[in-house]
Amino acid sequence: MSFDRETLESVLKRRFFYAPAFDLYGGVSGLYDYGPPGCSLQANIVDIWRKHFVLEEDMLEVDTTMLTPYDVLKTSGHVDKFADWMCRDPATGEIFRADHLVEEVLESRLKGDKEARGVVTAPDSGEEKKRKKKVKEIKAIKLDDEVVAEYEMVLAKIDGYSGPELGKLMKKYTIVNPGTGGPLTDPLEFNLMFETAIGPSGNLKGYLRPETAQGQFLNFNKLLECNNTKMPFASASIGKSFRNEISPRSGLLRVREFLMAEIEHFVDPQDKRHARFGEVKDIVLRFLPKTVQQEGRTNIVEETIGSAVSAGIVDNETLGYFLARIYLFALKIGVDRTKMRFRQHMSNEMAHYAADCWDLELLTSYGWIECVGCADRSAYDLTVHSKRTGEKLVVRQALTEPIVTEQYEVELDKKKFGPRFKRDGKKIEEFLMTRTQDELEMLSAELESKLSITVAVPEMEDTVEIGQDLISVTKKTRNDFIREFTPNVIEPSFGIGRILYSLLEHNFYVRENSDARAVLAFPPVVAPTKVLLVPLSNDPKFEPLLRAVSAALRRQGISNKIDDSSATIGRRYARNDELGTPFGVTLDFQSIEDGTITLRERDSMKQVRGAVDAVIEAVKTMVSGDGITWEEGTAALTPFDSAAE
Amino acid sequence: MSFDRETLESVLKRRFFYAPAFDLYGGVSGLYDYGPPGCSLQANIVDIWRKHFVLEEDMLEVDTTMLTPYDVLKTSGHVDKFADWMCRDPATGEIFRADHLVEEVLESRLKGDKEARGVVTAPDSGEEKKRKKKVKEIKAIKLDDEVVAEYEMVLAKIDGYSGPELGKLMKKYTIVNPGTGGPLTDPLEFNLMFETAIGPSGNLKGYLRPETAQGQFLNFNKLLECNNTKMPFASASIGKSFRNEISPRSGLLRVREFLMAEIEHFVDPQDKRHARFGEVKDIVLRFLPKTVQQEGRTNIVEETIGSAVSAGIVDNETLGYFLARIYLFALKIGVDRTKMRFRQHMSNEMAHYAADCWDLELLTSYGWIECVGCADRSAYDLTVHSKRTGEKLVVRQALTEPIVTEQYEVELDKKKFGPRFKRDGKKIEEFLMTRTQDELEMLSAELESKLSITVAVPEMEDTVEIGQDLISVTKKTRNDFIREFTPNVIEPSFGIGRILYSLLEHNFYVRENSDARAVLAFPPVVAPTKVLLVPLSNDPKFEPLLRAVSAALRRQGISNKIDDSSATIGRRYARNDELGTPFGVTLDFQSIEDGTITLRERDSMKQVRGAVDAVIEAVKTMVSGDGITWEEGTAALTPFDSAAE
Repeated sequence: MSFDRETLESVLKRRFFYAPAFDLYGGVSGLYDYGPPGCSLQANIVDIWRKHFVLEEDMLEVDTTMLTPYDVLKTSGHVDKFADWMCRDPATGEIFRADHLVEEVLESRLKGDKEARGVVTAPDSGEEKKRKKKVKEIKAIKLDDEVVAEYEMVLAKIDGYSGPELGKLMKKYTIVNPGTGGPLTDPLEFNLMFETAIGPSGNLKGYLRPETAQGQFLNFNKLLECNNTKMPFASASIGKSFRNEISPRSGLLRVREFLMAEIEHFVDPQDKRHARFGEVKDIVLRFLPKTVQQEGRTNIVEETIGSAVSAGIVDNETLGYFLARIYLFALKIGVDRTKMRFRQHMSNEMAHYAADCWDLELLTSYGWIECVGCADRSAYDLTVHSKRTGEKLVVRQALTEPIVTEQYEVELDKKKFGPRFKRDGKKIEEFLMTRTQDELEMLSAELESKLSITVAVPEMEDTVEIGQDLISVTKKTRNDFIREFTPNVIEPSFGIGRILYSLLEHNFYVRENSDARAVLAFPPVVAPTKVLLVPLSNDPKFEPLLRAVSAALRRQGISNKIDDSSATIGRRYARNDELGTPFGVTLDFQSIEDGTITLRERDSMKQVRGAVDAVIEAVKTMVSGDGITWEEGTAALTPFDSAAE
Repeated sequence: MSFDRETLESVLKRRFFYAPAFDLYGGVSGLYDYGPPGCSLQANIVDIWRKHFVLEEDMLEVDTTMLTPYDVLKTSGHVDKFADWMCRDPATGEIFRADHLVEEVLESRLKGDKEARGVVTAPDSGEEKKRKKKVKEIKAIKLDDEVVAEYEMVLAKIDGYSGPELGKLMKKYTIVNPGTGGPLTDPLEFNLMFETAIGPSGNLKGYLRPETAQGQFLNFNKLLECNNTKMPFASASIGKSFRNEISPRSGLLRVREFLMAEIEHFVDPQDKRHARFGEVKDIVLRFLPKTVQQEGRTNIVEETIGSAVSAGIVDNETLGYFLARIYLFALKIGVDRTKMRFRQHMSNEMAHYAADCWDLELLTSYGWIECVGCADRSAYDLTVHSKRTGEKLVVRQALTEPIVTEQYEVELDKKKFGPRFKRDGKKIEEFLMTRTQDELEMLSAELESKLSITVAVPEMEDTVEIGQDLISVTKKTRNDFIREFTPNVIEPSFGIGRILYSLLEHNFYVRENSDARAVLAFPPVVAPTKVLLVPLSNDPKFEPLLRAVSAALRRQGISNKIDDSSATIGRRYARNDELGTPFGVTLDFQSIEDGTITLRERDSMKQVRGAVDAVIEAVKTMVSGDGITWEEGTAALTPFDSAAE
């Protein structure tokens, strides 16, 4: 059965998985609140994430502040580069995100062309009709064939254009305000960080963080110390980040406030092997490498991560290890394997700090969505923060064999040097001390042949002659027993909201029976509620056993809800199908007599019966996340046939 | 042994429980990062909170946005009233929080007076010396006895003064910039919310939320629906909130970004009983009621919550139930019972929305600290949001017996009324429709006697006469089968950071042995790491068993760390005493032979020995939070004497 987004959305709204925030006040676009089932689903995803990554690998979890002072984000590059391009209509004050506008206008013209050519296009889905499109109507105008080809090429590369390039496209294709036909400004850069002032003076400018990563980098020295200075190691952080989108769209997929889970794995740049790579090397992943994309294709390459690393498709073992672990995590929470791919970034689309990057993309009705980024940020962040603050952010490694280096060194006779050059002494000294090895080699030769050197120091009018009574430039041998290096960072970064939304789509189906009930088929480990408890009727006789079963489940950490309303059992199960509750327990009059209860599975609607303790034990094994199937989990219980619902 | 804050702080810093955020950049006051042990401690407190409150009572947890538009916080009163008073020095630009400045100056004068009188005062603790005091030196100047009395009275009431009152005190006592002696401005109101702009236009003003509560109130209708419209029910939310403190101080106790856990329990204003009050009524709490405080005393009253509610000290069962549950939560995570008290707010200090409020205060080296507020916010928030948006936020209760009400009602003959009064018709109608029952009774009598009424409508020059051909005012009987009411809200609100800091102080001690080791004696359920695994030496023979025990513990969800460094076992335990790890497992050569291991308890340093599975089972019962003691948990294992460490 084909996926219908409108049906899913009505379930999500009715059961309050999430809803536009502040809708009582007309709403604020790009902000969503999670209701009880959404909040619980999110908590379960985060909990599994923490076990799968943090606990499994002994990562150092930190919780750092969202408020971040200007200086930090200036250094990291976000003040200058974390921006999108927008165009303003001076007449109406409307603001458009430049790339989105170009995309939408060209797409609508292509549609109009197809209409004019009489090509049947797929009708708009309900959602598309509802979506606030900038382009309100499609005009059936035929385009030249080469224009069509040009538009299609632009659309294929739409993510890669700079602001000025978008401006040129807008001029070339006469793209104006689609509502009024009025002209727009050239694309202007708009920084996507929310700005605020910290403290009462208003002088300390700050931002809401755009990622959790910077807080982890700034604590690098303390974290290395926590790890007893051993390398490699990883830190991790789960928390909200912010992005002041120009025009948020696509529901949970593009929002202004979102939960992230980020890992910063610090690794020796000379050794990116991973100790546990062997455990994952035979896992087959679905890749979309940049070489394939460069050919304009999107064919997926299926390969083991082991051979992808050997073949150099994936750069190194650590990157490869995390891709495999990300894949296993996605499977565990219920992502559809056939709707996953790892797409490599093209060099023109990588973040300003990244050396290589693979995204886990999940296929939804909005297309392929980037849900996890796995970037090699190289030594970029640690280096820039260290340079800016003067604090070393390095690893010191004791060596048994020294590193032997030969290099030219300058020595000055300070006693004579100062009096000789007076005020210029500092300038000349700094100039000499910052020469490259090649330059020093030449100076050394000059000194040997001429017994003096002549140098042109910037900011000084005349050249300076320095005799060998004042200076020596000689080759020295150094033995270093300490190797000092700035680690590289491999960063798996998870957008929890996007994963959660994709999970909803991947697990949604409509039962193929008369009443077409909607079901969210979450794996038990991630389901908001694990067990629905229903008494056959609201006879007060059921009350004591009902409470006892509920309390016993709770003691085992199994979330459960009682529904003792007067609705039919079928209706009560239908409500919980929409909530994705995997198990139902029914209490009937026999239960009161002999303490046996019925356990029902959501998707197969199979039932078994057994004593309360045995049923709880079965549920416990099946919700543990260890992948125990219904057949395995309920092997000790008795199959049970009930009347049709 | 007396508590030494400096020793605790050096442990917290060394083990990276938390640290000033951005210290690489010189730090930003009032912002702290949690390192791995602090982050884990926080996560455990939150986890216990969720189980103790949310799961135990089937609360509806939500996750709402921090970014909040202006309109919402204008309506809630925060734009106008969420403020502190500050004074500026026009010469230097320095800013002082007015109440803190008055407090500090008067305290220093009292100290100077004591010195002048030759009274020995306790020396400043190390921390006080370090703290950035505004008043740098104490001058030994004797004060008149009545001045001393006046100062003491002002200090006792320092939390209750308004800005203008603080201004008067500053004039009266000539309080100036303590650093320069220069004059200060009158106290100005400073709003404590962080402001930002949402979206690219800059026109939508927003704030970072000061509390999670508003997000819950705005979703009231959806939450009521989630609860199948049953009352009473509670929602809950865990998340960061923000407060732009004028001058943050006291470490984690007064910060600008903090984690809150808040419950909004919605209850019928006519019935504030609680179904589970019977389960807690015999619990003895330590109260500081407002009546005691009004007499200028701070004596604690110990009483059961049952009798406190009966006696009217605590207003109602629901409030009382939550006070008892808060107490049980605090005990479970390891708060010292003797350092807890429930203090009732005086009427002049209550938040603008509160009808009654009790704080759980914990005693620390900074004094009694408000850690949990438990307020009855009445129907304030739901009412104002409903009024502002025109959306009903109410409960509709079906009645079996109707509510019968008699009331005067106005009826107009619309056909004649409009033509008769023309433009003024609307004004007159609105005036009539908004009269009170008493006024209507009088109008009814007037109409009966004079056959017309004469009314003075605001904004109209002349009085208006309306005859009985146009209007009737008569008493009518109404039968309502639906009762519609705005619920009241009981709000337990937890400051997780403050609780966490108090917990650190309450659980800190120094071993009374030769090396005076510092210990954080967390209860096992809350400890960041549960088990330290140490092999006798770093012989590779230990490796397989070590990994196996670690993996087995992890499978049971028990966090553990391996320390196979070359430090002595005693030293390795010392490190983990500082981290508060409750259990240590030692592997020796016998372990390799027969699979038995030694388990050690942190505080008593008692040891037992047994097979791996048996030891893990014992640990599992002791970390569960069910209050199983060492003696109970290890009854099946063999006592073990090791050589002295």
